[in-house]
Amino acid sequence: MLATIPERIAALRQLMEQEGLSAYIVPGTDPHASEYMAAHWQETTWLSGFKGETGTVVVTMNEAWLWTDSRYYLQADKELAGSGIGLMKESEPDTPTINQWLQTTLHAGEQVGVNPEMFSVQSYAHLQQSLGSKKLTLKSIDLIRPLWTTDRPAIPDTPLYGYDVKYAGESVTDKLTRIRSCMQAADADVLVTSALDEIAWLLNIRGTDVEFNPVVISFVIVKQESCTLFVSPEKVTDDARRYLAAQKIDVLGYEDVYSALHDLKNCNVLFDGARLNRALYEAIPDNCQKTDRQSPILLLKSRKNPIELEGERIAMQRDAVALTRFFIWLEQTAGKEPLTEYDLMRKLHTFRTQGENFVEESFETIAGWQGNGAIVHYQATATDCAAIDGNGLLLLDSGGQYLEGTTDITRTVWVGEIPAEGTPERERFERIRHDFTLVLKGHIALACARFPRGTRGNQLDILARQFLWQEGLSYGHGTGHGVGHFLGCHEGPQNIRTDNNPTPLETGMICSDEPGIYRAGQYGIRTENLITVVPGGSSEFGDFLQWEVLTLCYYDTRLIEMPLLTAQEKEWINAYHKRVAETVCPLLTAEEAQWLQKKCETI
Amino acid sequence: MLATIPERIAALRQLMEQEGLSAYIVPGTDPHASEYMAAHWQETTWLSGFKGETGTVVVTMNEAWLWTDSRYYLQADKELAGSGIGLMKESEPDTPTINQWLQTTLHAGEQVGVNPEMFSVQSYAHLQQSLGSKKLTLKSIDLIRPLWTTDRPAIPDTPLYGYDVKYAGESVTDKLTRIRSCMQAADADVLVTSALDEIAWLLNIRGTDVEFNPVVISFVIVKQESCTLFVSPEKVTDDARRYLAAQKIDVLGYEDVYSALHDLKNCNVLFDGARLNRALYEAIPDNCQKTDRQSPILLLKSRKNPIELEGERIAMQRDAVALTRFFIWLEQTAGKEPLTEYDLMRKLHTFRTQGENFVEESFETIAGWQGNGAIVHYQATATDCAAIDGNGLLLLDSGGQYLEGTTDITRTVWVGEIPAEGTPERERFERIRHDFTLVLKGHIALACARFPRGTRGNQLDILARQFLWQEGLSYGHGTGHGVGHFLGCHEGPQNIRTDNNPTPLETGMICSDEPGIYRAGQYGIRTENLITVVPGGSSEFGDFLQWEVLTLCYYDTRLIEMPLLTAQEKEWINAYHKRVAETVCPLLTAEEAQWLQKKCETI
Repeated sequence: MLATIPERIAALRQLMEQEGLSAYIVPGTDPHASEYMAAHWQETTWLSGFKGETGTVVVTMNEAWLWTDSRYYLQADKELAGSGIGLMKESEPDTPTINQWLQTTLHAGEQVGVNPEMFSVQSYAHLQQSLGSKKLTLKSIDLIRPLWTTDRPAIPDTPLYGYDVKYAGESVTDKLTRIRSCMQAADADVLVTSALDEIAWLLNIRGTDVEFNPVVISFVIVKQESCTLFVSPEKVTDDARRYLAAQKIDVLGYEDVYSALHDLKNCNVLFDGARLNRALYEAIPDNCQKTDRQSPILLLKSRKNPIELEGERIAMQRDAVALTRFFIWLEQTAGKEPLTEYDLMRKLHTFRTQGENFVEESFETIAGWQGNGAIVHYQATATDCAAIDGNGLLLLDSGGQYLEGTTDITRTVWVGEIPAEGTPERERFERIRHDFTLVLKGHIALACARFPRGTRGNQLDILARQFLWQEGLSYGHGTGHGVGHFLGCHEGPQNIRTDNNPTPLETGMICSDEPGIYRAGQYGIRTENLITVVPGGSSEFGDFLQWEVLTLCYYDTRLIEMPLLTAQEKEWINAYHKRVAETVCPLLTAEEAQWLQKKCETI
Repeated sequence: MLATIPERIAALRQLMEQEGLSAYIVPGTDPHASEYMAAHWQETTWLSGFKGETGTVVVTMNEAWLWTDSRYYLQADKELAGSGIGLMKESEPDTPTINQWLQTTLHAGEQVGVNPEMFSVQSYAHLQQSLGSKKLTLKSIDLIRPLWTTDRPAIPDTPLYGYDVKYAGESVTDKLTRIRSCMQAADADVLVTSALDEIAWLLNIRGTDVEFNPVVISFVIVKQESCTLFVSPEKVTDDARRYLAAQKIDVLGYEDVYSALHDLKNCNVLFDGARLNRALYEAIPDNCQKTDRQSPILLLKSRKNPIELEGERIAMQRDAVALTRFFIWLEQTAGKEPLTEYDLMRKLHTFRTQGENFVEESFETIAGWQGNGAIVHYQATATDCAAIDGNGLLLLDSGGQYLEGTTDITRTVWVGEIPAEGTPERERFERIRHDFTLVLKGHIALACARFPRGTRGNQLDILARQFLWQEGLSYGHGTGHGVGHFLGCHEGPQNIRTDNNPTPLETGMICSDEPGIYRAGQYGIRTENLITVVPGGSSEFGDFLQWEVLTLCYYDTRLIEMPLLTAQEKEWINAYHKRVAETVCPLLTAEEAQWLQKKCETI
């Protein structure tokens, strides 16, 4: 057993030498391009000791480096100490990318190794092309598997379960029929996917393999006459076996997918090169045609059916009850008992667990007090978190997985008393109010948008940013990401960002609407609802679409600078608050309802 | 001499047979991808008799078809009558594209001929790929030149002239230095361009070869140590020769560019495949590397220098005087004398010619009365135009070429009396007002935008459309096109459209701001200014940009539905009108100034 980092690096170098490799890259991903990874695949951590979520290790005969972003600089410094691995700060403009570094460090003719399971077809091709321009070659080989053996955690083998069609809204048979007709349109005989959210959606299965995403670690191959799930046998309980058999889904072992692909002959294989792992691609024999295009599952999954949408609305009610109870508790407790950001995370989780059909959180809650709210990916922990002391601003971004659907909401609220007029604290409060209102105006403008069929999210993005931009302000993240249905809190292909994205918005897609503003060291503000595309009427000028707001939680109106709002914006807030109160109050105790009613008072 | 269309088609088929071609395509373009073409290149007209601006003829052994769009259906029907050439209505959804038609009409192994001068490198490659998918091959060959001989108009040989640096704002030496450093950055030894606006800008030359665009028909090859203009000797007068010699520009004959490229050896040739004609590409020997990327001239040209911008401001004043005088004349004349749309076009031209340094119009004026205003590319002619009868709406889109710069402006005005309350005419007028105001709100919102450096035009597009979209309305054209400086009225790479365009907006770029609404058969509304990108301040969130409005012409405030405007929009209009009055009135007679002052009254 290789007990220390230097031993592991030395053993890797020995294998590299045997294989004629001058460099080896360990990218900190898994064979499914997952957002949340099982411990089995935490190869970067095993090799370097670095425990951050994003990091790539590159080892040559003389050097070893970890690339990670600014969120993890401090952590990496600590965790890499004594390992002999240096830190490449990838958010710094002068830091070379891995490709650049390899191009300048290695010499023409040298070879770089990677495990093709850890790269998408497209990212592998990109790396290959980039190395090729300096006459370096790329070799597919897994050098971690032979080294990391006895102490390696197994691939999770928790049971999978059938996801009731009363929640999914469409049978597996119907989904397969639609996918097969997409395959026919693409002249494809076979479709293969390694994307766990696509598999869970297509086969109406869910699992508990990883945190936050109820997916099942597996692969799928669809043909016209069959559909095969490749999954470890331990996951397939008797119930699961019966369920899968009823859906006419064949079951083979997880690793059998490679030989199943290898055995194909003279057919056209459809895959999504942005998501399929390269090892699967390499398993497809040369006698087959390879058709790389966006997965048809991706688009079908993104357009929620009426039952999925109805489920989302129900999940939103449960979430609203939990959030309302949390904010009542916060108002009653802050300033009276010692509280930390971590306490808030736990408490909010407790309120959510009281909701029917709550399964787990959809991501780790972000509770950012004052300056911590300005750190976009801030994560308080039990041992490292700020105390909620005095009056101040709290940014709270959280979400739940319910059997009926997935939620994701951010509210920024003022905790404590509003500072007295004429004090410096009041001046700060007024600055916060101004920023909060600009963010809210953008949040409303996006929610109110009406747009012709065919419009892309990047065309709408400016609606959320315009008021900030007018004052020379901005935020560095996207305005909206796609959201799954009792699946990933982040999903494609749609989004609302400044970047180009060719996907038109279509009815049933869910996006977040989350502009923000971050004043480093001072405070952060973000306001987020989930919104879904609904029909917006037709005219001689075409079909139009608009948004329905799904999230049901009041805004802290004490933070609004009223003169900045137009009459329409006030009307919108009042109508929204009326809907929140009418929908959520009946689910609360009389006392709680009274509290919420007050928060929803007409402005 | 081939006197009739059938004779020409028959002669072409004879050549096609000799060359083993099953089809020949004549695309109605020229070797420079010009917007306005010299008669010499009107091969489509010669071959088919069709005189419309956009049309492609495809001839096979048994068939001949003209593809054109809906603007030209009536004209094509008339002009093709008896020619044996059929009409393909390319705006109809069921009409096959030329590629589709060739793919279904021809058989694998057959050959299609085109003159490579008439295709860009990219469009040729696209055609080749599309034909290749059905195993058809493409052959580069000019079959029109041997047929269209004695009666073919010559390539224009009007003199070129040096464009004074007092207008251009940057010497040829400085421009060449900048281009050569772009070439170095791309590892290129040679740059070749066939784009006439790029050549005119780079060498500070202008000409009168075609209408509306003061370009010189030519090619240019830039090397590190030399710059060669390929142009017919007739164009190079003694003055021109002295000018070019002073700029150290070598001069060779127009057709010599092909041999000059052919003689290159082992060098890296930079070109813009979207604009370079394919024949030039084919002339580059195989021993040379070919680097296809956006022309560096394009981007430098699009960012106007301070002297170009100052010139634009001066041109706008001259244009404002002409437009003001025109609108005064129109108000005094309409309803008293018989007038047609064509009369308005001529009269406006007359007023423009009275301006200092006016050279020509920058495009054919669009004067659309009532329902004609709803036809986006409407073109009245002396023999086919509407009478300006009674009260109604006039859309007037026009522009001028001045030595100082290029203008392009659209105003929509109400001609005659405002209909009395309670009449159906008044109802129509109120509908027009409503539409006009939605368009104006979008026009103002775009002009008021502030945005971070790096923002693309397609991100801003929705600002101009949002108010129309909210009411289920829309327009089918771009919101803004780039504009040249005493060059093309349309230029890239920037624009403001719904389509993706990767070009960020940069200071000095000029765009139009022209939302509209078109009610078929009833009326059209468009409001257009030219706007230029200027610095918009910096903050901890980065550098911002904003717009300066260049155009100086009042809006018809009788057409505004006042309750739809916000206080800020009214302020914007009042500030703009104040600027128009202050800038333009001193250039008018007292009486004219008084008239304009009234149009610019505070609302």
